[in-house]
Amino acid sequence: MSTLNEKALAMHQDFQGKLTVHSKVDISNQEDLSLAYSPGVAEPCRAIANEADLAYTYTMKSNMVAVVTDGSAVLGLGNIGSQAALPVMEGKAVLFKNFANVDAFPICLATQNVDTIIQTVKLLAPTFGGVNLEDIAAPNCFTIEKALKQALDIPVFHDDQHGTAIVTLAGLFNALKLVNKTFHSIKVVVNGAGAAGVAIVQLLHYFGVKDIILCDSKGAIYQGREIGMNEIKEEIATYTNVNKKSGNLATVIEGTDVFIGVSLGNLVTSEMIESMNEDAIVFAMANPDPEIEPALAKQAGARIVGTGRSDYQNQVNNVLAFPGIFRGALDVQASDINEEMKVAAVKAIATLIDENDLHEDYVIPNPFDERVAPAVAKAVARAAIETGVARKI
Amino acid sequence: MSTLNEKALAMHQDFQGKLTVHSKVDISNQEDLSLAYSPGVAEPCRAIANEADLAYTYTMKSNMVAVVTDGSAVLGLGNIGSQAALPVMEGKAVLFKNFANVDAFPICLATQNVDTIIQTVKLLAPTFGGVNLEDIAAPNCFTIEKALKQALDIPVFHDDQHGTAIVTLAGLFNALKLVNKTFHSIKVVVNGAGAAGVAIVQLLHYFGVKDIILCDSKGAIYQGREIGMNEIKEEIATYTNVNKKSGNLATVIEGTDVFIGVSLGNLVTSEMIESMNEDAIVFAMANPDPEIEPALAKQAGARIVGTGRSDYQNQVNNVLAFPGIFRGALDVQASDINEEMKVAAVKAIATLIDENDLHEDYVIPNPFDERVAPAVAKAVARAAIETGVARKI
Repeated sequence: MSTLNEKALAMHQDFQGKLTVHSKVDISNQEDLSLAYSPGVAEPCRAIANEADLAYTYTMKSNMVAVVTDGSAVLGLGNIGSQAALPVMEGKAVLFKNFANVDAFPICLATQNVDTIIQTVKLLAPTFGGVNLEDIAAPNCFTIEKALKQALDIPVFHDDQHGTAIVTLAGLFNALKLVNKTFHSIKVVVNGAGAAGVAIVQLLHYFGVKDIILCDSKGAIYQGREIGMNEIKEEIATYTNVNKKSGNLATVIEGTDVFIGVSLGNLVTSEMIESMNEDAIVFAMANPDPEIEPALAKQAGARIVGTGRSDYQNQVNNVLAFPGIFRGALDVQASDINEEMKVAAVKAIATLIDENDLHEDYVIPNPFDERVAPAVAKAVARAAIETGVARKI
Repeated sequence: MSTLNEKALAMHQDFQGKLTVHSKVDISNQEDLSLAYSPGVAEPCRAIANEADLAYTYTMKSNMVAVVTDGSAVLGLGNIGSQAALPVMEGKAVLFKNFANVDAFPICLATQNVDTIIQTVKLLAPTFGGVNLEDIAAPNCFTIEKALKQALDIPVFHDDQHGTAIVTLAGLFNALKLVNKTFHSIKVVVNGAGAAGVAIVQLLHYFGVKDIILCDSKGAIYQGREIGMNEIKEEIATYTNVNKKSGNLATVIEGTDVFIGVSLGNLVTSEMIESMNEDAIVFAMANPDPEIEPALAKQAGARIVGTGRSDYQNQVNNVLAFPGIFRGALDVQASDINEEMKVAAVKAIATLIDENDLHEDYVIPNPFDERVAPAVAKAVARAAIETGVARKI
């Protein structure tokens, strides 16, 4: 066991978990009791019974997000189940609180059945102002998120998909400025067709990228491919890889401008990077080992490299996105987190780096940059209002 | 709107609800992040994946109780639904925290279907060390509690039943000392066959009371009564009212030693009290108006009177029970709150009043008596260990 692991274990034991519930009100005498509880509490109850949205005015719903998992794809640990996922969900809630003063609460569901998860989260909605899905394996995560977004009038957001996609796009947004290329002109290969890979492709498409190829372990995905397809891959194949290129990553990466990896460590070689276009942009985000080490990628000609790790430059860290996104959504009592709000988050993160400061090793802000969450929240809230999903304007 | 209601509404609005989630750990730099979240958090996850009970060591489960409602019987407001019940559930969580440092979190379920509630609470269990059912109407509350107690390996406790029963029995325990009567010899009438009434009868029976009559709006309940029965009333009729007395409350209260009301205001008359035995004990707990005003009951011959109100002596307030009960159960990682633990709570509450201090107007401790929760917790934890339901000894 490494020292970090020992320290982490000791810390979790010392505190008996990381989250605690606090009261905002004092209860030290009979009057306090009669205001916070019976009989005074009946008054906000009556108000909400008359008008449900007054729950935003009188209850914790206004600032409370459920962090929901089924424990099927926890960090790099895989399907360890929902009980074992609880430390991660508590950690996520800690980040929500720390970075954006969002109250978040873990909901670890003792099921991995898609329909049961959907039904259960629907039933929990009265307590919460938003739902953050977390560490749910693909392709179930797509089905669950889609169904819940349709059913609920509070925002539903699968962070492993959209958080990663938003921060990646922010980095790409800045990287393209440095190399003088545009979203419309670039060729992109995304390796890994799980939650993050799929969401990245969807967001690239939304940003106007015309030439995208998504690869999975079977190679390039195209319409009509017969093995290893599923509903979401079929959908993506309708607007990516229009020339139906087949073959493995080494084949299709040739002549592209951008490589985005959300797959496995060390599966990209120097030769692959060398085969890319000039001023190649490489986001190698596998954890703990990137698809290619940044130094190796640069040696092979990559101009800008990002990873998922904090010990390299340009860390793609979801914490840059989800706290501010929910802060903004909650601030306007949004009913959804839609594409326009995601785009607003991308641009808010990217444009925090002044053009004068922008360089190859600084296309993504630092996770502890305190300007990020407020900037994202503001942009997301504005987009929610402009697109008509805000209850409060 | 009264001043109290106005103040309560303003307070709920000012704070936007009463509960907030806090982190026990600081996140101010990269190392903090790597301990509380990735990659360090993987270590407690792996430990729990190997041994599920280590969730008590490494997570908030060790101190976290779900306060679950379907909004079907909220305070005196009735079936206002789960969204409107949220202020009460937050209030309950505030009391858990304030009186016994138990973290509690509202779960307001958007369903009133018994089977769906049972299934949903089962699925939520990984996050919680206990379940407090709250404001669920009879008879559904009985079915739900029974099923969940069987299914789950964490304590399940319906406070409207057992909290009320435990504090009532504590008051009765002391009242009997003052009048020199015993549980075995007394005749008791309980009026109201909802959650509280049923649980009070069950606990009286457990304490050895032989002569109990439970009344509902149709009068005395007995085996073979044809109207207004249900499963739980049938069960209770097997061991109460052995002489199958029929008739209304006025008829069956005659010649009894104890009246316990969990029904409606002002339905007990002076004549009824006068018809009781000498040294009558009256717990008139309807809210906001008791079944009979204490002064009137005393005038009619009652020696000891308790109510549910804070402005009279001998208040039967659940807050004397549930915080300490869950504190004790959580302290030993109990899998259940069984009858022995409830009895331990009754005695712990009752015996806090020294025999020298005991008198007609002081048979129940004050809700703000700080000795109560620790004493209850200690007694409940010991009973859990003695009955083999404690994981931690």
